[in-house]
Amino acid sequence: MALKLITFTDAKGPRPGAVINDTQVLDLLAAGALPAGVTCMKGVVAAGASALAGIRAALKAPAPAAVLDRSAITLMAPIPQPSRNVFCVGRNYMDHVAEGDRVAGRETEMPKYPQFFTKAPECVIAPDAAIPDHGATGVTQYLDYEAELTIVIGKAGANIAPEAALDHVFGWTIANDVTGRDLQRRHGQWFKGKSLDRSCPMGPWIVPADDLDTSDVGIKLWVNGEQRQSSRTSKMIFDIKAIIHQLSQGFTLLPGDLIMTGTPEGVGYAMVPPRVLKDGDVVEIEVEGIGRLSNPVKA
Amino acid sequence: MALKLITFTDAKGPRPGAVINDTQVLDLLAAGALPAGVTCMKGVVAAGASALAGIRAALKAPAPAAVLDRSAITLMAPIPQPSRNVFCVGRNYMDHVAEGDRVAGRETEMPKYPQFFTKAPECVIAPDAAIPDHGATGVTQYLDYEAELTIVIGKAGANIAPEAALDHVFGWTIANDVTGRDLQRRHGQWFKGKSLDRSCPMGPWIVPADDLDTSDVGIKLWVNGEQRQSSRTSKMIFDIKAIIHQLSQGFTLLPGDLIMTGTPEGVGYAMVPPRVLKDGDVVEIEVEGIGRLSNPVKA
Repeated sequence: MALKLITFTDAKGPRPGAVINDTQVLDLLAAGALPAGVTCMKGVVAAGASALAGIRAALKAPAPAAVLDRSAITLMAPIPQPSRNVFCVGRNYMDHVAEGDRVAGRETEMPKYPQFFTKAPECVIAPDAAIPDHGATGVTQYLDYEAELTIVIGKAGANIAPEAALDHVFGWTIANDVTGRDLQRRHGQWFKGKSLDRSCPMGPWIVPADDLDTSDVGIKLWVNGEQRQSSRTSKMIFDIKAIIHQLSQGFTLLPGDLIMTGTPEGVGYAMVPPRVLKDGDVVEIEVEGIGRLSNPVKA
Repeated sequence: MALKLITFTDAKGPRPGAVINDTQVLDLLAAGALPAGVTCMKGVVAAGASALAGIRAALKAPAPAAVLDRSAITLMAPIPQPSRNVFCVGRNYMDHVAEGDRVAGRETEMPKYPQFFTKAPECVIAPDAAIPDHGATGVTQYLDYEAELTIVIGKAGANIAPEAALDHVFGWTIANDVTGRDLQRRHGQWFKGKSLDRSCPMGPWIVPADDLDTSDVGIKLWVNGEQRQSSRTSKMIFDIKAIIHQLSQGFTLLPGDLIMTGTPEGVGYAMVPPRVLKDGDVVEIEVEGIGRLSNPVKA
């Protein structure tokens, strides 16, 4: 079974853990499973293979005192406070590019280079945490979802060759690139529409790169149980290796960096008629081999 | 005289200071001028008015033991490691929008909303620090400069009304939005071309908002002594208040946030023939009332 690394909290505060089974998790600090000085997921990611070896060993015979009931803890985003903005790739699935061009009334042209933008670190929220609908302020009238496989960088590097790119990956998680479509359009550059408060649900955990080949896994999204997106990561225009290669040109990637890899077709604004997220909706995303990320939308 | 707040380093490591005159600075920690627990510029900014009052008092009668020769210290960027990406506004001076549209061969259309993008925190470099030309890797063939007045946010807030915007400003500094024009163009979204390593020289210091009205000050840039940019901040399309108002819609600004406010006309790519920054060039930026930021370009 793939290792599932979580950040969780309870009365003792946030700390790193690992999923044992559907009802139990291991407190990695209490289990003495982490390298000296490592107390958070950023530390686990930076420590890399040595941390993973200790965690896997601890999971083989979980110290009873370090085993907690899932019902007694609250999941946080795996990296609750990234050290810099989350990097994102736009227009990276062919059928999503096509649906966007159709709505815009222009001929479809596949991007020749990946389009990178960012979301502020404070946008990141936990599994099951509420996405605000901004209805009271009217900041956006057009809130939308985007299911995305997300890369967690483990090893620093710049000008990374495609064939070396996977060596820089610590693992994978899931994120929802919640977007104010009206803001995205009218501000030209996408940061404004992409970086609303609490617009980046992430989790529920990180699966190490060694445990999952993400080159062809299913990616799906539901709103209130109605399936909206269903594709495979093999349909990315720029694959994981190309994304890391391109983003790292003249730019040093760092351990703990998060790269959202784009969303497939089926976003709300391209539906006929268009659909908007609103108070009471629940958005669920599944990436095969990782898990399921669910978040409600609240006024 | 306007207060000039610096971050500097010497054998004792980085710490906050204030300029006394052309040859001397005050070590604010050694002078006991800072609130308890404040040891860096982020702390000074978060403390706000109370920190400024102590600093101004200490400068009136500088403790001799806390006075250092400018030649004995090295300036760093005022906030050497921002907590999240630096926010930037593109196409925010009318004549710069016009020169860009001329190069692109399209009719000039003024933006109706500000275009926001970001530069990674690690792009920030000190006054006099070298901007890499990326010539050896060939990552960009088209390195360019952009002189920009930069806002330092002091007070957190979202959905900030224009008339309240200046209450959220701690002060002002200068930055150079160094850009790989070829990358900016071909990646569509600007993050890639705008976030090359060491592409954000910033400083030389922060002038508090109380000490300078930036609504109509000169902004100029020279390359090797040749003037390339010369305008006034009153020519911004979206002024400081509008920028803060727009950026904060549904998005919480935080103390220590940096917002670069766009560059006037005269960038290298719009010159006839176009000009490119190369090894050995020196770029100097002056914003009236703040000071001068100088950085060499190195292979």
